[in-house]
Amino acid sequence: MSDKEMYIQRGFSSRVGFGSRPALLVIDFIKGFTDASCPLGSNLDAEVEATARLLDAFRTGSLPVHFTTTAYDDAMVSAGVFVRKVPSLAQLKPGSPWIEIDERLAPRPGEVVWTKQYASAFFGTSLAAAMTAQRVDTVVVAGCTTSGCVRASAVDSCQHGFRTIVARDCVGDRSAAAHESNLNDLDAKYADVVPLEEIIKAIAG
Amino acid sequence: MSDKEMYIQRGFSSRVGFGSRPALLVIDFIKGFTDASCPLGSNLDAEVEATARLLDAFRTGSLPVHFTTTAYDDAMVSAGVFVRKVPSLAQLKPGSPWIEIDERLAPRPGEVVWTKQYASAFFGTSLAAAMTAQRVDTVVVAGCTTSGCVRASAVDSCQHGFRTIVARDCVGDRSAAAHESNLNDLDAKYADVVPLEEIIKAIAG
Amino acid sequence: MSDKEMYIQRGFSSRVGFGSRPALLVIDFIKGFTDASCPLGSNLDAEVEATARLLDAFRTGSLPVHFTTTAYDDAMVSAGVFVRKVPSLAQLKPGSPWIEIDERLAPRPGEVVWTKQYASAFFGTSLAAAMTAQRVDTVVVAGCTTSGCVRASAVDSCQHGFRTIVARDCVGDRSAAAHESNLNDLDAKYADVVPLEEIIKAIAG
Amino acid sequence: MSDKEMYIQRGFSSRVGFGSRPALLVIDFIKGFTDASCPLGSNLDAEVEATARLLDAFRTGSLPVHFTTTAYDDAMVSAGVFVRKVPSLAQLKPGSPWIEIDERLAPRPGEVVWTKQYASAFFGTSLAAAMTAQRVDTVVVAGCTTSGCVRASAVDSCQHGFRTIVARDCVGDRSAAAHESNLNDLDAKYADVVPLEEIIKAIAG
Repeated sequence: MSDKEMYIQRGFSSRVGFGSRPALLVIDFIKGFTDASCPLGSNLDAEVEATARLLDAFRTGSLPVHFTTTAYDDAMVSAGVFVRKVPSLAQLKPGSPWIEIDERLAPRPGEVVWTKQYASAFFGTSLAAAMTAQRVDTVVVAGCTTSGCVRASAVDSCQHGFRTIVARDCVGDRSAAAHESNLNDLDAKYADVVPLEEIIKAIAG
Repeated sequence: MSDKEMYIQRGFSSRVGFGSRPALLVIDFIKGFTDASCPLGSNLDAEVEATARLLDAFRTGSLPVHFTTTAYDDAMVSAGVFVRKVPSLAQLKPGSPWIEIDERLAPRPGEVVWTKQYASAFFGTSLAAAMTAQRVDTVVVAGCTTSGCVRASAVDSCQHGFRTIVARDCVGDRSAAAHESNLNDLDAKYADVVPLEEIIKAIAG
Repeated sequence: MSDKEMYIQRGFSSRVGFGSRPALLVIDFIKGFTDASCPLGSNLDAEVEATARLLDAFRTGSLPVHFTTTAYDDAMVSAGVFVRKVPSLAQLKPGSPWIEIDERLAPRPGEVVWTKQYASAFFGTSLAAAMTAQRVDTVVVAGCTTSGCVRASAVDSCQHGFRTIVARDCVGDRSAAAHESNLNDLDAKYADVVPLEEIIKAIAG
Repeated sequence: MSDKEMYIQRGFSSRVGFGSRPALLVIDFIKGFTDASCPLGSNLDAEVEATARLLDAFRTGSLPVHFTTTAYDDAMVSAGVFVRKVPSLAQLKPGSPWIEIDERLAPRPGEVVWTKQYASAFFGTSLAAAMTAQRVDTVVVAGCTTSGCVRASAVDSCQHGFRTIVARDCVGDRSAAAHESNLNDLDAKYADVVPLEEIIKAIAG
């Protein structure tokens, strides 16, 4: 029996579906992660371009859009113990171009860019409160990396009470194996992993 | 029977005392609050000067220091429902001098300035995580306003597991009545309200 | 100028109003707080009876209802530093009748009783997540005490993105002075303080 | 290049190491998960027995120990949107033996059993506050499942500022592939994955 069959048989992997008010959450598509010349980066052109299409759909529908970046103070105090585990986080300092959103996805007025210090977009930010005030009930997740900030944010989105949809074509990772494994975990336990075209249809509908 | 006696009789108002590693938390001593020409501001010169002395004690002891400011995105999305209640929060926008720390208390390298959107310094920030990573066990609170961000931050400091000390001479408010009432609540339930000189002695000791 | 006028002039004290989906949050109307024979308790009969009427209105409208109690493990580890400040919290142990909801307000199926350890109903519980999943946008607060758990919960309700209404007749305190002062703070900064009859009309409307 | 080499080259996978005050966190070794006759369960005898040894080491050293269980109200309101994704969570109801800690790991006085509703032991509980009050700086994680509650809790432990150590022999999963993949992610980004014997030595030392 495959893992997928095992999960279904045991009462996992149900569909959460879309609610009535989705928001788009674009996680850490910052230059430090989308530019392969940064130690933290890799080539994510296909995922960024797919996300640009998703962003169009949300903007056309006048639906809430949120971005995140990751950044620390110069002394890395705000990085807590995380920087002991991942010393290259020290690349993400104030004033560095690495912490800017990729220009192919430039935020517009009314779209908040949240600065976070950890993996989850909801940890140490007031993102959940802003979404609640916007009456959001569904969070569509794009960004990177699948095994890092996307995974942590999608789990937290479910934990905060939002139906969570991961846009399969709009999330990417440094490791192909970790990417697939995390999508499997997310789809079994926390979120629906859904192709871009299907999400665009649901948003337009 | 006075409220103070009532609380003691009922098993409140005990002393939490200092632990072994205090941090200083300076809440919202930003120009918008310490300059009486801002609708949100008032004259807090005495409290700012007392805080400068407290800051000296922490710096002399090489102890952790944290500051907060309050700021929103231009569209006030990050202000959630709070701005419905307090429309003048819209003064606190990116680029405004109102959100800068009062220059009499200028932060030094290694002292983080946390940007928050709500009353509590711990809500929507990763301040508690940074303090835990610094092995802090005691939070000394200065700042403004006593009935607003100081009250909410001191309650949250207790809730997060830190011994909490409010520096009586270093906190101020727009309303004298609200100032006193909140110090009474805090001292009965969440924090020790302690004069500046006593804190300086404890830090030096 | 009165504090009330000062707040209005400075851009506080606006009305948040009701949204489209209110929930009732009944905070700590437990026997240890509503029975004057407990060191933590006082006579809150009028407030409990007013809350029973409010509860009827929410049940008639099939609207979400949540209760809280406060309770700790026998060793008080889960009380953190809070029990250093308020030693009488040790009354609130598993198995004690003090931690049971007052029988005049008996919860019904589908109404969750959240066990919390601190002042705020939202701290260390997944209440906000449950309300978000229920599509709640407005939290009506009843319970005790005004200067303790009601204050902390109303502030946190605003911080989590919910419009917050404090039911003036349904909240009580050990101290009359602290009661009034906290209602003033709440109404200026975080929540609308509204009489029972007005809330019942809004819920029915 | 292997993923492991890629992570090291890019500045991940550093060692966080032990601090001076470790706590043990035993996640969801409840009968519903350790009894293969429950739809949520599987045979985790080896992991439970290894955890019993780890528990001995912590108890011998008089170090803090915390357990979690997962449980909901009868109406599953407290399960939020999570139960839409994993309908079999409805097995975890008050009064069910499934939510009890496996008797091979019976908690002792002073060891808190936290009831959580979501994957992370830190979400919707005041566990982090209790650990901070206990001066904990290092969290050693055991329990199940590796790809579910262990992963989410270890990420959150790092996010809350604790050095995080996953006890390799003391964590288990329904899926062998998900188990390995999640240990790889954790060791690269959030926690040191360490064999039991090495942890026992560090605790004793």
